Amino acid sequence: MTPRSSRWREYLQLKIDRNKFCAAVGLHFTNLQPGLIEAELEMKEMLEQQNGYLHGGVTSAVCDMVAGYAAYSMVEEGQQVFTVECKVSYYNPGISDRFYATGWVEKAGKRFHFCESEIYYMKGEEKVTVAKSSTTMAVIEAGAIKDKHDK
Amino acid sequence: MTPRSSRWREYLQLKIDRNKFCAAVGLHFTNLQPGLIEAELEMKEMLEQQNGYLHGGVTSAVCDMVAGYAAYSMVEEGQQVFTVECKVSYYNPGISDRFYATGWVEKAGKRFHFCESEIYYMKGEEKVTVAKSSTTMAVIEAGAIKDKHDK
Amino acid sequence: MTPRSSRWREYLQLKIDRNKFCAAVGLHFTNLQPGLIEAELEMKEMLEQQNGYLHGGVTSAVCDMVAGYAAYSMVEEGQQVFTVECKVSYYNPGISDRFYATGWVEKAGKRFHFCESEIYYMKGEEKVTVAKSSTTMAVIEAGAIKDKHDK
Amino acid sequence: MTPRSSRWREYLQLKIDRNKFCAAVGLHFTNLQPGLIEAELEMKEMLEQQNGYLHGGVTSAVCDMVAGYAAYSMVEEGQQVFTVECKVSYYNPGISDRFYATGWVEKAGKRFHFCESEIYYMKGEEKVTVAKSSTTMAVIEAGAIKDKHDK
Repeated sequence: MTPRSSRWREYLQLKIDRNKFCAAVGLHFTNLQPGLIEAELEMKEMLEQQNGYLHGGVTSAVCDMVAGYAAYSMVEEGQQVFTVECKVSYYNPGISDRFYATGWVEKAGKRFHFCESEIYYMKGEEKVTVAKSSTTMAVIEAGAIKDKHDK
Repeated sequence: MTPRSSRWREYLQLKIDRNKFCAAVGLHFTNLQPGLIEAELEMKEMLEQQNGYLHGGVTSAVCDMVAGYAAYSMVEEGQQVFTVECKVSYYNPGISDRFYATGWVEKAGKRFHFCESEIYYMKGEEKVTVAKSSTTMAVIEAGAIKDKHDK
Repeated sequence: MTPRSSRWREYLQLKIDRNKFCAAVGLHFTNLQPGLIEAELEMKEMLEQQNGYLHGGVTSAVCDMVAGYAAYSMVEEGQQVFTVECKVSYYNPGISDRFYATGWVEKAGKRFHFCESEIYYMKGEEKVTVAKSSTTMAVIEAGAIKDKHDK
Repeated sequence: MTPRSSRWREYLQLKIDRNKFCAAVGLHFTNLQPGLIEAELEMKEMLEQQNGYLHGGVTSAVCDMVAGYAAYSMVEEGQQVFTVECKVSYYNPGISDRFYATGWVEKAGKRFHFCESEIYYMKGEEKVTVAKSSTTMAVIEAGAIKDKHDK
């Protein structure tokens, strides 16, 4: 996709660096393109649900993050993105030591970006999809949301 | 609602106790009823998104948890619950030191429970809804999902 | 809810009157309030799916209509509403001669209204919910969407 | 995809033929494959919303139908499919004389099929997506749902 700001990468990186939950979960970004984000997640005990698999809440949080950053890669400088709604479908249990997440913009608009994302792992050569999301991201002007970090 | 097992509370508590992500987030359960779960969450730095508010991923994880436990309160002993899909709508930014979450079963079936949940905070006397979810929980027989903890 | 235009009722009625699919399905409005819409639907052969029940597509169309009109009851004069997304959960098969639909605004905002709706029938004294929806309605300024009827 | 019944096509066709709402809308099937359904829809006045575009309710009904039939193409003989939930995102207004719909199975399981579908039109060489859906279809044994047509 064609980015809407020449500084899209720095702006996106700034948003990622400020995100403390992202760091707490341990999501590691491996590819940032306009409209496409890829990341990896190493499994750790903190991310388990009651059966020892990747927690569905973590799965949905990661789906939201990569979709949201895909949206952030397609805004004008200073514009903000927030999640209007996100639906996550759970295809297979998350049983792996390492997960991969991809988020992308399906349709970039003026007011919204419709995005999707998925999280998967590799079982030998086979890709096993853990979850897929469909989400609406609102694009709004700078200053429309107050930032706790803005002084 | 009428529970489907006389030991629903012990069974539900066992599921809660095993959930490591739940503990990591710091979700604290305040009311467990058949078909209705209430919990509280104290804000901490780890849960922030880039603006310093409650991270949407945490919000959706909490929505999934209280809805899922509401479903777990309405199964026969030994049955398992997993999230088929969960949609979360974000009504207001999560700007507070303390959040409240409620999950409930809207319709209990044989194969699925349709559940909803919400997360909110109090601004003086006013309840401010941060997010509301609508979710499908599958109810399956014991043993249909292997448990990493089962030896 | 407090309407945002003194002429909300006429404006809403105009939108209803122009809707040809609404008329084709036979949806009959019984109560129009700011933020709350009620309607009835008589079963007819055209609305059947393959088992002879109310077609899921009709159900979702009706859910979308009453939620959308609930949103239309809460806009400023001239503003338009369009459905960003709508999720419908199917609780019970639609087996009846008469259905009732209710749509309401859960949270009215500046850019969006989050709405819900349900369709149900009466089985004696008991209310049987056929479907429940959760939807995002965008509120936009007059002229932002071109109207085929505008000359 | 590999069908689960040698008679999948006849069974699917039977389900399509029985669907009266499908006929009323005028949906015409152009390609039936295991896990993939394609159809066309000619615009007519009955399908208009208040701006003269394709009604969102029709859009969602068509999304549900092609996704549902994609699921029906991937069941064992006699098994039934019903929509558990369907979320439709509206990308662009439906302004055309002819629409195309595609439904496919993203993940075929034992209890559910996760399906997606889209409806689009052609603007010269360009494909314009009107809506995209993400849906959960339950697969159940014959006889679990009573058929009004079964005598």
